[in-house]
Amino acid sequence: MLRFVEHILKNFLESARFQNFITGIIILNSALIGLETYPEIVKDYEPLIDTFDMVILVCFTIEIALKIFIYRRKFFTNGWDVFDFIVIGISILPAAGSFSIFRALRIIRTLRLLKSLPKLRLIIESLLHSLPSIGWIVVLLGIVYYIYAVVGYNLFQEGYPEYFGTLDKAFFTLFQIMTLESWSSAIARPIMDGVPYSAIYFVTFILIATYTTLNVFIAIVVNTMNQLAIAGMHEEEEHIKSFVASQNKLLHQKLDQLQEEMESLKGKK
Amino acid sequence: MLRFVEHILKNFLESARFQNFITGIIILNSALIGLETYPEIVKDYEPLIDTFDMVILVCFTIEIALKIFIYRRKFFTNGWDVFDFIVIGISILPAAGSFSIFRALRIIRTLRLLKSLPKLRLIIESLLHSLPSIGWIVVLLGIVYYIYAVVGYNLFQEGYPEYFGTLDKAFFTLFQIMTLESWSSAIARPIMDGVPYSAIYFVTFILIATYTTLNVFIAIVVNTMNQLAIAGMHEEEEHIKSFVASQNKLLHQKLDQLQEEMESLKGKK
Amino acid sequence: MLRFVEHILKNFLESARFQNFITGIIILNSALIGLETYPEIVKDYEPLIDTFDMVILVCFTIEIALKIFIYRRKFFTNGWDVFDFIVIGISILPAAGSFSIFRALRIIRTLRLLKSLPKLRLIIESLLHSLPSIGWIVVLLGIVYYIYAVVGYNLFQEGYPEYFGTLDKAFFTLFQIMTLESWSSAIARPIMDGVPYSAIYFVTFILIATYTTLNVFIAIVVNTMNQLAIAGMHEEEEHIKSFVASQNKLLHQKLDQLQEEMESLKGKK
Amino acid sequence: MLRFVEHILKNFLESARFQNFITGIIILNSALIGLETYPEIVKDYEPLIDTFDMVILVCFTIEIALKIFIYRRKFFTNGWDVFDFIVIGISILPAAGSFSIFRALRIIRTLRLLKSLPKLRLIIESLLHSLPSIGWIVVLLGIVYYIYAVVGYNLFQEGYPEYFGTLDKAFFTLFQIMTLESWSSAIARPIMDGVPYSAIYFVTFILIATYTTLNVFIAIVVNTMNQLAIAGMHEEEEHIKSFVASQNKLLHQKLDQLQEEMESLKGKK
Repeated sequence: MLRFVEHILKNFLESARFQNFITGIIILNSALIGLETYPEIVKDYEPLIDTFDMVILVCFTIEIALKIFIYRRKFFTNGWDVFDFIVIGISILPAAGSFSIFRALRIIRTLRLLKSLPKLRLIIESLLHSLPSIGWIVVLLGIVYYIYAVVGYNLFQEGYPEYFGTLDKAFFTLFQIMTLESWSSAIARPIMDGVPYSAIYFVTFILIATYTTLNVFIAIVVNTMNQLAIAGMHEEEEHIKSFVASQNKLLHQKLDQLQEEMESLKGKK
Repeated sequence: MLRFVEHILKNFLESARFQNFITGIIILNSALIGLETYPEIVKDYEPLIDTFDMVILVCFTIEIALKIFIYRRKFFTNGWDVFDFIVIGISILPAAGSFSIFRALRIIRTLRLLKSLPKLRLIIESLLHSLPSIGWIVVLLGIVYYIYAVVGYNLFQEGYPEYFGTLDKAFFTLFQIMTLESWSSAIARPIMDGVPYSAIYFVTFILIATYTTLNVFIAIVVNTMNQLAIAGMHEEEEHIKSFVASQNKLLHQKLDQLQEEMESLKGKK
Repeated sequence: MLRFVEHILKNFLESARFQNFITGIIILNSALIGLETYPEIVKDYEPLIDTFDMVILVCFTIEIALKIFIYRRKFFTNGWDVFDFIVIGISILPAAGSFSIFRALRIIRTLRLLKSLPKLRLIIESLLHSLPSIGWIVVLLGIVYYIYAVVGYNLFQEGYPEYFGTLDKAFFTLFQIMTLESWSSAIARPIMDGVPYSAIYFVTFILIATYTTLNVFIAIVVNTMNQLAIAGMHEEEEHIKSFVASQNKLLHQKLDQLQEEMESLKGKK
Repeated sequence: MLRFVEHILKNFLESARFQNFITGIIILNSALIGLETYPEIVKDYEPLIDTFDMVILVCFTIEIALKIFIYRRKFFTNGWDVFDFIVIGISILPAAGSFSIFRALRIIRTLRLLKSLPKLRLIIESLLHSLPSIGWIVVLLGIVYYIYAVVGYNLFQEGYPEYFGTLDKAFFTLFQIMTLESWSSAIARPIMDGVPYSAIYFVTFILIATYTTLNVFIAIVVNTMNQLAIAGMHEEEEHIKSFVASQNKLLHQKLDQLQEEMESLKGKK
């Protein structure tokens, strides 16, 4: 009996209709949270919006609960389901408190769209897929950052505490320099007036950081292209092989026929 | 009789000479509108320029009217013709009012060049062609923007209304941050002084937005390259196949000859 | 007799030793002009440097004169020789006047290095080679610039003459916006305070200009890659073909032998 | 006897355990140097940290000394070992003086990680590997910089000594312009107010510098891709060849059999 209920529930949860319904709710929820940024609307309709919000949250919670009930352990082996679980878990928090930071967190329910829309799920998966190929370059970049942050702290911490006062600030400043934002007019030029030869620090950092980032980029392009090229080549290879094989089949037929006749010739004697 | 007129008109409209004439008029028109930005010229020749402008507009209108008369429904199935129709439609508006915004709109007639010059038309078509492959990444970027805009509004709207006062302003600010323009010196640093840990907000947004945009770019490169590579591989495949086939033809000839002689040998007995 | 002199001169001009000598002079000349940026050096050694400069210019002039004498008309059909001619022609001008702008022009003699160093000449040629493939995209970008410049002039010329006061200024401002430099903090935000909805103007321009520039870039990458890929495929094709041919040669040998024996068998009877 | 000790030492130095130990020490050392940026920690634990630091430096020195003892001349032919040698050499300097600049230098010991982690070593080697292909483009960029620096010095040195006062400053300013940072709002616009037509100087420099840098980038992408594509094609070529060969083997077998029977037929007679 229980297995029958489970079977029906499973079909229901996996039906396209139910999934479209959930997608619709996610979009509605996101829109509602967006509406709350208009003060006039909040003033007039806050209780209504809050009720809606609560209903939607209950829907999500029931959906997840049912899924866990149906799939049990398998639920936690699917990355996307775990993602859903965490997103909704975080979403329940704001219901508890009423701090603005918690209210802001509700918007991450919109992230569930990434799972609901198959095309987006594919893109996210391919984005994550290309992360490993850049992993070690990120480690390299981390080492470069760390060295420059420590050197920057030691050289400029006294004169320019705003930019290099602590290791954290130095990291942030280096990130800003890597994005090339006001690196010279706001940071390098004032410091160069005080600390001679500090131009070397900034220029080498920019060259190293840019060149390394460039290689992150190249790694992704080359990786993606290469996979496609190899797939294309394999296909081409198969086509040529099967063509050669079919061509040879005709030769074999003729040879077999010759062979046969040769046999008959021999037999005749 | 009417069909005969239509036939002559069609040939006339599609003749290279007429199309060059239209292209010439579009360039002349664009130049005239450019001249109007020189106050001395406007002062002395405004009536002349306005007359010219009117004549050109009449030319365009007649051209479009004739085309609709000739092609009828088919006119509205050709994307470029509809584009022309809209451009000229918008161009007639300024003739009605005299507001500077309307006068400014006349310049979009220059867009007709995109259709008149075949090479440009090709480029535009290829630019539009690569849009679908980035469509869903744009949706993804939209979701990221929306989430960050709502979070930004909730966190910074009170302290920094200039940048995050409304959802619209938050969107514009995020776009500015994505272009990396003054993101740190003008936006992130002042806010970080007031709201602790807000660096996380800006740095994660930049990383996600840049990485996603990068993938827009990679999608286009890889897409274009792949199409060319596949075309090249198919060509190569065909060459190899036809070469193998021609080689085998010679083998077949020899085998056929052998077969023939075998027959004759058998026949002899 | 004259032809004999010409022959010797030609060998001399084309000898590696003479070309290295010229390359050396160009570098020496560039270094001297660089030295003139140190006021102390100028004060003490100006006459010496000027003498050197004059001697080098005489060398260059004699070299070019000899080349024209030897190659005559052919001289002006070689792009690089014409380039040399123009560079030295412009270099003689400063000798006439003494304005700082003219003195500054002498540095373009350094450009002769682009011709003297074979590797650089190759790179320049390949850079110029990829220009045609982006030619029409530049025309497209020109049209976009023109339209936005005229619209910008009409909308913002009164309120913000510094940025959009004339068509020239509008072009420069648009170029600045395309490089994303201070586009928002210095240009868009102040204007948005005065002219409602002007954000549309800036954001659409950035999106169109960036996307088009991106395609300039992609055009070059794809073009270069494709040429290399096609070359590689042709090579592969040839290898496979010659392998198939050599393989078939063996089959032909065996068939020929069979044929021969068949003949002898027939002959026997 | 000595050779026996050397053998044991060599095995010890090359053992995975010892290399992990060294890697651990490098990370520990880097962390310690990072800790020194927290003033409270420095105040309380400075002697302890300094002791640790000394111990680690002694470890590194012994490691290097042993390696030189074992590998002798061969030590100095391995680029990575020489790199280690230099890094540790520079690291010993701070132990001598106590200037902050020397203390800061200790952090470069972290660079030893680049050698210790095999993946990083690979990335560094591939980054260095692609340098030659961009070498001449860097020379070209150097020439462009030099010409613009001299011209900029001559034109703007008097009015804008901050940016073009010396050749060094001009180089730094050009680097800033190439990164597009405040090139217009801080540099070009003020100068354009004083020196007419100077926009040409800035715009042409940006176009040339950006286009050339773009080609540095393209050179690397195309280079990397091409190597992979050629490798892929060679593999494909081999597969097809071996397939054709194996196919022909069957044909040969049949032909050999035919030949044999022909022989027996001839023999029979």
